[in-house]
Amino acid sequence: MRVLAKDIPSAAREGKDEIEASGWVHRIRELGGVVFVILRDRSGMVQLVLEEKGGLTLESVITVKGVPAFNEKAPGGVELKVKEIRILSRAADLPYQVNADIGKIGLDVILDNRVLSLRNPKIRSIFKVQATIVEAFAEYLRRADFTEIKTSKLSSGSTEGGTNLFKVEYFDRTLCLAQSPQLYKEAMVASGLERVFEIAPVYRAEKHDTPRHLNEYVSLDLEMGFIESEKDLIELEKGLLAYIFDEVARKNGPDLAAWDAAVPPAGAVGAAPTVAYEEALKIANEEQAGAKGNGNPARIFDINPEAERLLSEWSLREYGVELLFVNEFPRRYRPFYTYPVEAAEGGGKPAALTMSFDAIFRGLEITSGSRRQHDYSAFAQALPKFGLKEENMAGYAAVLKYGCPPHGGFAIGLERLTQKILALGSVKEASLFPRDRRRVEP
Amino acid sequence: MRVLAKDIPSAAREGKDEIEASGWVHRIRELGGVVFVILRDRSGMVQLVLEEKGGLTLESVITVKGVPAFNEKAPGGVELKVKEIRILSRAADLPYQVNADIGKIGLDVILDNRVLSLRNPKIRSIFKVQATIVEAFAEYLRRADFTEIKTSKLSSGSTEGGTNLFKVEYFDRTLCLAQSPQLYKEAMVASGLERVFEIAPVYRAEKHDTPRHLNEYVSLDLEMGFIESEKDLIELEKGLLAYIFDEVARKNGPDLAAWDAAVPPAGAVGAAPTVAYEEALKIANEEQAGAKGNGNPARIFDINPEAERLLSEWSLREYGVELLFVNEFPRRYRPFYTYPVEAAEGGGKPAALTMSFDAIFRGLEITSGSRRQHDYSAFAQALPKFGLKEENMAGYAAVLKYGCPPHGGFAIGLERLTQKILALGSVKEASLFPRDRRRVEP
Repeated sequence: MRVLAKDIPSAAREGKDEIEASGWVHRIRELGGVVFVILRDRSGMVQLVLEEKGGLTLESVITVKGVPAFNEKAPGGVELKVKEIRILSRAADLPYQVNADIGKIGLDVILDNRVLSLRNPKIRSIFKVQATIVEAFAEYLRRADFTEIKTSKLSSGSTEGGTNLFKVEYFDRTLCLAQSPQLYKEAMVASGLERVFEIAPVYRAEKHDTPRHLNEYVSLDLEMGFIESEKDLIELEKGLLAYIFDEVARKNGPDLAAWDAAVPPAGAVGAAPTVAYEEALKIANEEQAGAKGNGNPARIFDINPEAERLLSEWSLREYGVELLFVNEFPRRYRPFYTYPVEAAEGGGKPAALTMSFDAIFRGLEITSGSRRQHDYSAFAQALPKFGLKEENMAGYAAVLKYGCPPHGGFAIGLERLTQKILALGSVKEASLFPRDRRRVEP
Repeated sequence: MRVLAKDIPSAAREGKDEIEASGWVHRIRELGGVVFVILRDRSGMVQLVLEEKGGLTLESVITVKGVPAFNEKAPGGVELKVKEIRILSRAADLPYQVNADIGKIGLDVILDNRVLSLRNPKIRSIFKVQATIVEAFAEYLRRADFTEIKTSKLSSGSTEGGTNLFKVEYFDRTLCLAQSPQLYKEAMVASGLERVFEIAPVYRAEKHDTPRHLNEYVSLDLEMGFIESEKDLIELEKGLLAYIFDEVARKNGPDLAAWDAAVPPAGAVGAAPTVAYEEALKIANEEQAGAKGNGNPARIFDINPEAERLLSEWSLREYGVELLFVNEFPRRYRPFYTYPVEAAEGGGKPAALTMSFDAIFRGLEITSGSRRQHDYSAFAQALPKFGLKEENMAGYAAVLKYGCPPHGGFAIGLERLTQKILALGSVKEASLFPRDRRRVEP
């Protein structure tokens, strides 16, 4: 019976006289007629002591039987003196050194050799953190009475306007890959489930090739009925992010340590401020003027990456957390289905503001959300202003026409959140098999 | 503060003198100058008593404040005498009667009007069961040390041979939608995660339009390293299905009752037999001869839908459960990466058998799985027999070349499992927004 590397010290202490272990050859060192091998499995590492190297190569997969012996210098304090070795898969010469310091390997080499680069425990740890995020997202929402849904990623493409869409040949017609499950999650709220979430890929045919863009990413989406404004959603996201951070801290200690990273401490997320768009612009410009130490920096006109960075710094200084919410975006920045502020508040605000928000975490937008227009006649009246025709919006009409509660939702980009938790240089590092304009393999 | 329908009886018993409720107008009945409305929310139903109907229409969304009164005839034993009503969204005339008996509504009407048909609690219950399946699948595997992964659904398409693929225009080239995460999940085993699972859509451009086919479905995929044969996978699937069934029984009692359905009882799944392909064919033919009561039925030559039905009946009669596993499929029925029996057992079996299996549940194949070829040279030698060229298989080569443990895995079709648990007539009923040759909306 195989014993995992992490369990070998306790098996040895219990007096087992023979232990079977399986895994990958992480390191080979010959010293004074003895061969030391570090064996790596999914749980950790163990040192093996062999009399000869034989045909062993780095990264080969082996199964050994050995006698445990206590050795302070071995990882975990125990090594196995190997009596029997079986090579299950002999590794060919490696294209690059898998167990090397990844700081010295370029991103393209890491991504070109994805199967191999993931052998490096530090790289693999990115995806252990990511798995925790997915689990915690679902768990928190299930406890709040949300139902998980799975919706089609193939649409006729007329609902969202039609830019940045990838086209699919679907039998004798052309469909589009979903940019978001927007219509479907709204439909599921209106269907009576009221609170839904979905974890699924989305597609953006954007030509950007930057450290913050992917053309295919995993969207953590949710939508809920019977809300008053985007502020209900911001409160929900604070609770959700705090839970995700706590779970990552609890389950991924070694993975965070490998990247010298930390999640915001318990309680910090609750202190994150909400700033209206116009105010956020003002703060960003003030921060820029202050930081540059001159009176005439380039003025910031919208919440661009530079503004996101400055606002995060401001939030950390003023509120102790690199997280903030920007709400009340002007109409022109948001999609047609976003609910206007004046409809709810009766003219207290300029007519062109919306019940929308972004979440900015450590200098990067990780969420976009809003209350949605749920009133069918207001929706129909607004369409021409967006260059849209009601006859092309049958899906939306069906959702709103037959009784739809006030509702809203948001989405978190899984890879962006992973990137920012671990302070990775590029979002591509947080995608197992990233797709960008140039990269479609492996 | 809104009180959910299911919590209203206890709120009334606690002596609350005013209760706020929100939801959809499920039924309206006028009787002796009083209007009775059944209000439906995500949790259940509550009866409202109004003095007049006003502008109320079926399926409108309302918020009411009312005084609770005990009434044995009301659902839950409590009704609300309404003092204040607010119509949040007035429903237009319905295209068909949402709260009618769904047995009388055709599948096309249900699917054409998806947003409305989901208002029917019986139809919505399908997706509550489905949500439990997804949750239980992930939960069981996490406890068995599996890591959840998310892989790209866009591939260059050369790895699997190239039939039944949907093509995607991806910037200046053509990619394919993934038929399965096969290569990627194998890669993740070889990367050192050893045990992985993925819940994601897959795409099959098959022209079939049957009650058992979807062109887009959710695949519950897993892959694990260090197995001996497909029998390890069958044992894992038995434990996994038993857990899913138990969770559905525990969480979805009312949903099962709505469909007059039941999962196999605790313990039954463990008794499911495993039958080799040749033996399964023999049993199917014997069952057919016996069932038809004549000596000359059409002979069954492979495990087709009729054979799946007969084998399930046989399994129920002989083993008390409508679940069985068929293993050792002949080479010609399985993909190139399937591990041969003789390689492991040294000639005891005919050379053309594979370490593969299907799971058949209630007359339908819900799973296909196998041990995979992990030996690079055996893999390279086998390719020409499948009409494949090594130079087109760089992805697979990279997985196997640099140390890959013996491994295997399987996938469960989420919609098929949902269909069979609830005994739905068509798998399309178990997809929120099904895609087939004709249907791409909503």
